[in-house]
Amino acid sequence: MTCCVAAIAFSGSKIERADHIRTDPERLEALRSPQAQLLLLDGLVPTLDGENRLAWGGLADAPEGAELVFLGLMNKRGAFAAVPTEGSADPAFAHRATWQAVASMGAEDMAIYGCARSLVDWHARHRFCAKCGAPTVLAKGGWQRNCGACKAEHFPRVDPVTIMLVEHEGNLLLGRQSRFPPRSFSALAGFVEPGESIEEAVTREIMEEAGVAVRDVSYISSQPWPFPSQLMIGCHAFADSARLKIDTSEIEEAHWFTRADVAEALAKGRDSTSFVPPPEQAIAHQMLKWWLER
Amino acid sequence: MTCCVAAIAFSGSKIERADHIRTDPERLEALRSPQAQLLLLDGLVPTLDGENRLAWGGLADAPEGAELVFLGLMNKRGAFAAVPTEGSADPAFAHRATWQAVASMGAEDMAIYGCARSLVDWHARHRFCAKCGAPTVLAKGGWQRNCGACKAEHFPRVDPVTIMLVEHEGNLLLGRQSRFPPRSFSALAGFVEPGESIEEAVTREIMEEAGVAVRDVSYISSQPWPFPSQLMIGCHAFADSARLKIDTSEIEEAHWFTRADVAEALAKGRDSTSFVPPPEQAIAHQMLKWWLER
Repeated sequence: MTCCVAAIAFSGSKIERADHIRTDPERLEALRSPQAQLLLLDGLVPTLDGENRLAWGGLADAPEGAELVFLGLMNKRGAFAAVPTEGSADPAFAHRATWQAVASMGAEDMAIYGCARSLVDWHARHRFCAKCGAPTVLAKGGWQRNCGACKAEHFPRVDPVTIMLVEHEGNLLLGRQSRFPPRSFSALAGFVEPGESIEEAVTREIMEEAGVAVRDVSYISSQPWPFPSQLMIGCHAFADSARLKIDTSEIEEAHWFTRADVAEALAKGRDSTSFVPPPEQAIAHQMLKWWLER
Repeated sequence: MTCCVAAIAFSGSKIERADHIRTDPERLEALRSPQAQLLLLDGLVPTLDGENRLAWGGLADAPEGAELVFLGLMNKRGAFAAVPTEGSADPAFAHRATWQAVASMGAEDMAIYGCARSLVDWHARHRFCAKCGAPTVLAKGGWQRNCGACKAEHFPRVDPVTIMLVEHEGNLLLGRQSRFPPRSFSALAGFVEPGESIEEAVTREIMEEAGVAVRDVSYISSQPWPFPSQLMIGCHAFADSARLKIDTSEIEEAHWFTRADVAEALAKGRDSTSFVPPPEQAIAHQMLKWWLER
């Protein structure tokens, strides 16, 4: 699926991260000039211009006293985003206004917005030192926070999540959580825990949620997911049996779907009679396409 | 490399994580019985018995008032570890005493120790709420911490890191950091940042550290690494050119090594004349073996 990486939403940002500038206070300060570009956000919600592109202003548009994150270089000028005064009240899932904006913007803007959102949301929810409780300050252009009291250094968080297509005799296991829209099904997924490999996380999650043993776990593709900051790791595995034992505390339902079901869902979307597939922006959608095409 | 997962150090734990028990206070309490097993740690350093196996005691062996992490079920009995009163002073790299113990223990014990170490070290360094600065308390058997003041929930951290074999005309790019032992070389590596896929992280890291463009990134295998809690994601990529531009702030040296160099290094270890390879416990070692064998 390497060939389809361009189709993976929230990846492919054209901003150059320029990490050497993060650790160079003089160059960073020089980039905080009238030429600097500030990504305009309403809290964590993107602001679009008349052509549904991300709206940019200057540093003067940042709220008074707001911390600034250096996103990188865009057309050789510094690109920044301001940390909102409060973190997202609902970090795990996007607000409707965010999704409406994301659905209207182009792929490159999605990647820029996703990275900026993950970073500023992390800052807003990490103003204090987890080690000693004292206030922390933004450092290295926003790619670190430092504690003035105990000198601990803190780094933006990325949480690895496995998401998996489980196959048995040509059918695919898909499930739904109770928060999903009606008739929507997607690939099962779960956070990688300390002390396990990707392959072990896939095996454990499928056993926990669907009660079935899997083998031959293979990697398909990956995606950064900015609600709030996951690394989605797409995998495929074969189940030893079709018999399921669903953990209804985690998922509401899970079933085996035929190749024809999946093809119909992808072709017809919400009008499909089999199930409503995950949105195009989700890696699960691209994984279903990969499965049909291979 | 799926077939070699058993050879990946720090994976393959025989403890059943039993995540349904974490959210069941009554069952959790029932497991805190005289039959419960406590992993004996000296801070974060493992304690071994006379046969170089991890030493276990009972809950009475935990320090007075120590928080207990439920590792899972081992032979149907609860397995726990106590959070040390202070976090590791040196979380990124293991102490010599730890490495001596790890090098003497069996593969299953390494996996149990690695997971326990990541968890208790995270608790020791996260006693306060990053959102509001108030003290937090252990929850869900140690797989969560809760803030009593702002009600924020915090979860153990796993940081995804890409580690990559870069190949050009049959030669392999390996580098060394100044902290490495003399003549030691390994695969280049770096943290996955918010807003990038695994494939983008590989490409960016190689460009930053070695100044060379890569293509056709593919996944090899993964490993949990408990110093302090990384998910190592092993990849392979092809470089477009042999010309390097090393960022000496990140790595001291990097060179292209021939297949014969790598074979000699793996065969002779410290006595090799080409370079000293990474230790067997590191995924980089297994990746070099995979590269020679495929």
